[in-house]
Amino acid sequence: MARLQRRLAQFAAARDWGQYHTPKNLAAALSVEAGELVEIFQWLTPEESGRVMARPESAHRVEDEVADVLAYLLQFCEALGIDALGALASKIERNEKRFPAAENGHSME
Amino acid sequence: MARLQRRLAQFAAARDWGQYHTPKNLAAALSVEAGELVEIFQWLTPEESGRVMARPESAHRVEDEVADVLAYLLQFCEALGIDALGALASKIERNEKRFPAAENGHSME
Amino acid sequence: MARLQRRLAQFAAARDWGQYHTPKNLAAALSVEAGELVEIFQWLTPEESGRVMARPESAHRVEDEVADVLAYLLQFCEALGIDALGALASKIERNEKRFPAAENGHSME
Amino acid sequence: MARLQRRLAQFAAARDWGQYHTPKNLAAALSVEAGELVEIFQWLTPEESGRVMARPESAHRVEDEVADVLAYLLQFCEALGIDALGALASKIERNEKRFPAAENGHSME
Repeated sequence: MARLQRRLAQFAAARDWGQYHTPKNLAAALSVEAGELVEIFQWLTPEESGRVMARPESAHRVEDEVADVLAYLLQFCEALGIDALGALASKIERNEKRFPAAENGHSME
Repeated sequence: MARLQRRLAQFAAARDWGQYHTPKNLAAALSVEAGELVEIFQWLTPEESGRVMARPESAHRVEDEVADVLAYLLQFCEALGIDALGALASKIERNEKRFPAAENGHSME
Repeated sequence: MARLQRRLAQFAAARDWGQYHTPKNLAAALSVEAGELVEIFQWLTPEESGRVMARPESAHRVEDEVADVLAYLLQFCEALGIDALGALASKIERNEKRFPAAENGHSME
Repeated sequence: MARLQRRLAQFAAARDWGQYHTPKNLAAALSVEAGELVEIFQWLTPEESGRVMARPESAHRVEDEVADVLAYLLQFCEALGIDALGALASKIERNEKRFPAAENGHSME
């Protein structure tokens, strides 16, 4: 992941995109790509949503949006010096304390 | 990253959250968290957005939302058997061909 | 609707919020509020999502997010001189031509 | 606005789209369209964002996304029996009490 983050940074630098890549803009771009991922699923039933990888066309589209979301997340973290994996590991530890395993209902926040 | 993906899967399984974690719902949850990340930046100037990590309170909030976005992205990929890093590596290769380094303007799609 | 649009404009002007209310920021704020609306529904089944108004607490939350989405949409249109109702009427006319009534499947774009 | 809401309802009914138009799906569709609106602005400076209506191509794109956002908002409200204008009027009244006019900073929630 660190290697991909560096490649993305070089890719943007070589195209002089640094001026566009403020944290604010990268957060917006991330949410736009997340919206494009939601769009694939918006009219599907829960069951249909589990079968999107069975058709090559929708499978490719889903993978493409996943790549876009991850690309902007890594670029956002690069811009602000955030360790995404470290942040997630800390969060999981906090959540393991907050939501003991027998919990009913659902909330991850 | 693979290790965190497994921990998230165990975390959800132990709480019987699998029923909620359809790809459709996880994509929606990812976009909700991306929206919460955007919220932090929505009224900031581009310059202010570059300084969010300087204040402990906003730094913590940003890291927390990054963790949430990554958590739902990994859970989404787990549910559909997608290799996020592989999808991103393929995308970067395609983009390196599509956007030669002297390109003006900006577009990553 | 025009009257509410004016009240929102006066409300923002009286608080000197004009500096924050660029079209870019208002579009981001609109998407953030739309995300908060999605959040209410994210773990619900399609059937449960049809019953959110039956509980006073979730009914109030839904109405509150609807108000926020509409508020930012109107402020966005105010900032750019857009006639939202006119834009929608034109779109409906175009769609009535593009999607004759016997159409299968779903797409509104 | 009520008239447009009825036309949208007839439009969807004539195409048998009612099955897709659960509140959950309509909220997701609304957020997807809000994301498409953000996309237009994502790499623009605040100043550039104020000039999007000066170019016919981007002006048309902005109006089109405004129409889509409003269309899904009205269909969402139709599905749940929500009076969007009434909800906004109530919210403005509450906010006029919560944020007296001399307020510094910015928050609308």
